[in-house]
Amino acid sequence: MDDPLVIAAREFSSRLVMGTGGASSLESLERALVASGTELTTVAMRRADAVGQTGVWELLARLGIEPLPNTAGCRTAAEAVLTARLAREALGTSWVKLEVVADDQTLLPDPLELLDAAEQLVEDGFTVLPYANDDPVLALRLEQAGCAVVMPLGSPIGTGLGIRNPHNIELIVARAGVPVILDAGVGTASDAALAMELGCSAVLMATAVTRADDPERMAVAMRLATEAGRHAYRAGRIPKRFWAHASSPSR
Amino acid sequence: MDDPLVIAAREFSSRLVMGTGGASSLESLERALVASGTELTTVAMRRADAVGQTGVWELLARLGIEPLPNTAGCRTAAEAVLTARLAREALGTSWVKLEVVADDQTLLPDPLELLDAAEQLVEDGFTVLPYANDDPVLALRLEQAGCAVVMPLGSPIGTGLGIRNPHNIELIVARAGVPVILDAGVGTASDAALAMELGCSAVLMATAVTRADDPERMAVAMRLATEAGRHAYRAGRIPKRFWAHASSPSR
Amino acid sequence: MDDPLVIAAREFSSRLVMGTGGASSLESLERALVASGTELTTVAMRRADAVGQTGVWELLARLGIEPLPNTAGCRTAAEAVLTARLAREALGTSWVKLEVVADDQTLLPDPLELLDAAEQLVEDGFTVLPYANDDPVLALRLEQAGCAVVMPLGSPIGTGLGIRNPHNIELIVARAGVPVILDAGVGTASDAALAMELGCSAVLMATAVTRADDPERMAVAMRLATEAGRHAYRAGRIPKRFWAHASSPSR
Amino acid sequence: MDDPLVIAAREFSSRLVMGTGGASSLESLERALVASGTELTTVAMRRADAVGQTGVWELLARLGIEPLPNTAGCRTAAEAVLTARLAREALGTSWVKLEVVADDQTLLPDPLELLDAAEQLVEDGFTVLPYANDDPVLALRLEQAGCAVVMPLGSPIGTGLGIRNPHNIELIVARAGVPVILDAGVGTASDAALAMELGCSAVLMATAVTRADDPERMAVAMRLATEAGRHAYRAGRIPKRFWAHASSPSR
Repeated sequence: MDDPLVIAAREFSSRLVMGTGGASSLESLERALVASGTELTTVAMRRADAVGQTGVWELLARLGIEPLPNTAGCRTAAEAVLTARLAREALGTSWVKLEVVADDQTLLPDPLELLDAAEQLVEDGFTVLPYANDDPVLALRLEQAGCAVVMPLGSPIGTGLGIRNPHNIELIVARAGVPVILDAGVGTASDAALAMELGCSAVLMATAVTRADDPERMAVAMRLATEAGRHAYRAGRIPKRFWAHASSPSR
Repeated sequence: MDDPLVIAAREFSSRLVMGTGGASSLESLERALVASGTELTTVAMRRADAVGQTGVWELLARLGIEPLPNTAGCRTAAEAVLTARLAREALGTSWVKLEVVADDQTLLPDPLELLDAAEQLVEDGFTVLPYANDDPVLALRLEQAGCAVVMPLGSPIGTGLGIRNPHNIELIVARAGVPVILDAGVGTASDAALAMELGCSAVLMATAVTRADDPERMAVAMRLATEAGRHAYRAGRIPKRFWAHASSPSR
Repeated sequence: MDDPLVIAAREFSSRLVMGTGGASSLESLERALVASGTELTTVAMRRADAVGQTGVWELLARLGIEPLPNTAGCRTAAEAVLTARLAREALGTSWVKLEVVADDQTLLPDPLELLDAAEQLVEDGFTVLPYANDDPVLALRLEQAGCAVVMPLGSPIGTGLGIRNPHNIELIVARAGVPVILDAGVGTASDAALAMELGCSAVLMATAVTRADDPERMAVAMRLATEAGRHAYRAGRIPKRFWAHASSPSR
Repeated sequence: MDDPLVIAAREFSSRLVMGTGGASSLESLERALVASGTELTTVAMRRADAVGQTGVWELLARLGIEPLPNTAGCRTAAEAVLTARLAREALGTSWVKLEVVADDQTLLPDPLELLDAAEQLVEDGFTVLPYANDDPVLALRLEQAGCAVVMPLGSPIGTGLGIRNPHNIELIVARAGVPVILDAGVGTASDAALAMELGCSAVLMATAVTRADDPERMAVAMRLATEAGRHAYRAGRIPKRFWAHASSPSR
């Protein structure tokens, strides 16, 4: 596999991690997941998805997509740790996307509860993928705590505001020893491409796809954009200039 | 063909128009053109490309890519009209990418000479694709003059600054009755995706690909990004919100 | 006078040029003009301002503010030239803010009619202050035509979108031999400060003040912001850096 | 006093908080402080300022500026608490600007150590002004811990990158019950104006002034910009629009 995404020694050929929230039906979700090419998809353990959870787990199994239980809806480290353990028992996976949000208005991660939960779960043998704000200090702390990746947000969940602070993402990438996965805020394809160009190893999104007018087509867009951004990152872009620069010398 | 780009009643399945300037060799150019999937590529009539012009025309013919002669290097309407006519005689095509730039520092189009040349060439039976600034008024004027498309810039040629003024591109698209092709300024894949998301029908670039560290890989990136942006535009993105919005209701 | 604005050999100590459009009453306008500290204010010759034009001219005279008739509402060079001449006869001033807009949707200048009118009016002895788009090529052309200043827009009239393309304003300033006055699009104080920091010599605005909830206070804000931006421009700002930089060495 | 800044029941007529780091001499610093109009200025307890600390305290006393000791250079809550206590003993003030940074590359606050130190210092009777990242969750936590203000950064110290994430500042302001002071990252006057327009109650800066080519003039710029932004915020700006909007109806 050329240029695989490696998380905790596991390889993925797709760099698009999907979420299932917001899908209008299992059928719509299935078409979107297939179109996205995702190999890793996160599902909330504690939230009542419109499409029903039992069906989602079966769907992922049928599609051969690795399920990634998440702790969405948890407000404290204790809740999140409990939820992760229940997920491990129920699903037989020690991977967890760790979400500990502070409030409903912003759905922003609580940095203290998040780090606390991450430390407990790593200690307990989990492979932890923490949804975090875009603070470069917290990102390092999560990595030092043993998280398998760091997942800074682009902007708050569901806002579609894209990457509000590319500088922070660049700072995080510049110092990270684990993969950086851009999580939350993606609204459209160029946001996903930009994330990859900034050096992220993958992009995670849910409602940008599931709540688009045409989820299946948007899934295609996101798959292509993620690949495009990755290729652009590896290809080495031209520098930015103030003045123009002709493509060929005058005769 | 699903969702073709239609210019002057001709259909293209690729929405990526390439230029050849800046390529380090014919071999490098060939790999990049093939990787880009382009079906329409512009070549300067009056500039001495590093890779040699004779070879470029033959290369396009061999690859089955439609050649689009351009008038790069022309400073006046008279020069551009003459160059277009020479191109028509030499190449047997009445299509021309019309460039009339004002100076070497900015390589920005001269709006008056450009419009003058466009009117003369349309009158003379050419299919005119004019490289213009991002002025919504000039765009309308060029369309009224009979141009087959309008080609506003994202930023000056070779700067890699992307789309400096998305609002102007949106204004142009909102009122255009012909395809809008984003021309100049693209630096990386997300720029191309954004152009398409703003409603452009295609994107044109040269040095963003040819002068990238790895032109072939960047060509792949641009092909994917252009497709991604087009799909995202058609798929109907989620709205932008100030506050967060959960992907699924709490239990 | 330290650091005066000089237009056509006339000195102004204020760099804030006001417009009168949009004022809800003459009283409100008076308070705003006084608060703004403006010494040069433009009034439409052909439009029916809510506050009545006769009163406006008298108000400016009473306040000692130089009136600058403008040709707002003109669509062709011929109309604008006629309007300017009527203004000169009526008001005894050969200064004119030249506006030739293309349509009501964008109120953007028509570059061709504008340049045509500018050439005629310069020839006829006017001191011409042309409202233009932000095209660096047109700016040079207007200067070469003998205009006393160039007045690129920040964004379309009344949008409040600020300076959509700072790069273009910088390009214009870098090559201008006459004062550059940012005209149109200013929505709030930081927009005015930014214009000055980019090197503009002055800023013109109307509705950002007259249609603010509190026009008088906004006029104060704009006066201060224009001065702030000018001082910052002259003071030489610190460079931008990717990494942090401590203000003092560690012990 | 109209519209004073109120911190812990103390009123200030200036909304510009200065730092002293980076000044090339005491004389230069004095001129800048006077020009800035500041009434509250922070001084590092643990760092060797080029201009010498003894002199700085005397200077502030002579100018009648309230000194605000800060804990710059501290890496842990313990260090910061100790430093604050030493400052209280030495200077007789229980106010402290709390800085606990994580590393030298970013000089970004460590959110955990910061909150820990804030809680200890509030408990110990200090009036705590914490320098924080722009995380809306941490801002609320610091307020709940009893901090007198919250001081989110615009961008890392000394970068001059301005406000990288205005959305976060808006989120913080929207939920804050204490004054929000924009701290760090300001590079030029429009940055300060923007901070105030976003609803901040004050702006803090050091090197944007002390390391400008002309610190005294930049101090003037910052004073004016801060006032401008505050007035603009209170004046109620016009809305942003996509299409143009004429300032006066056509005849």
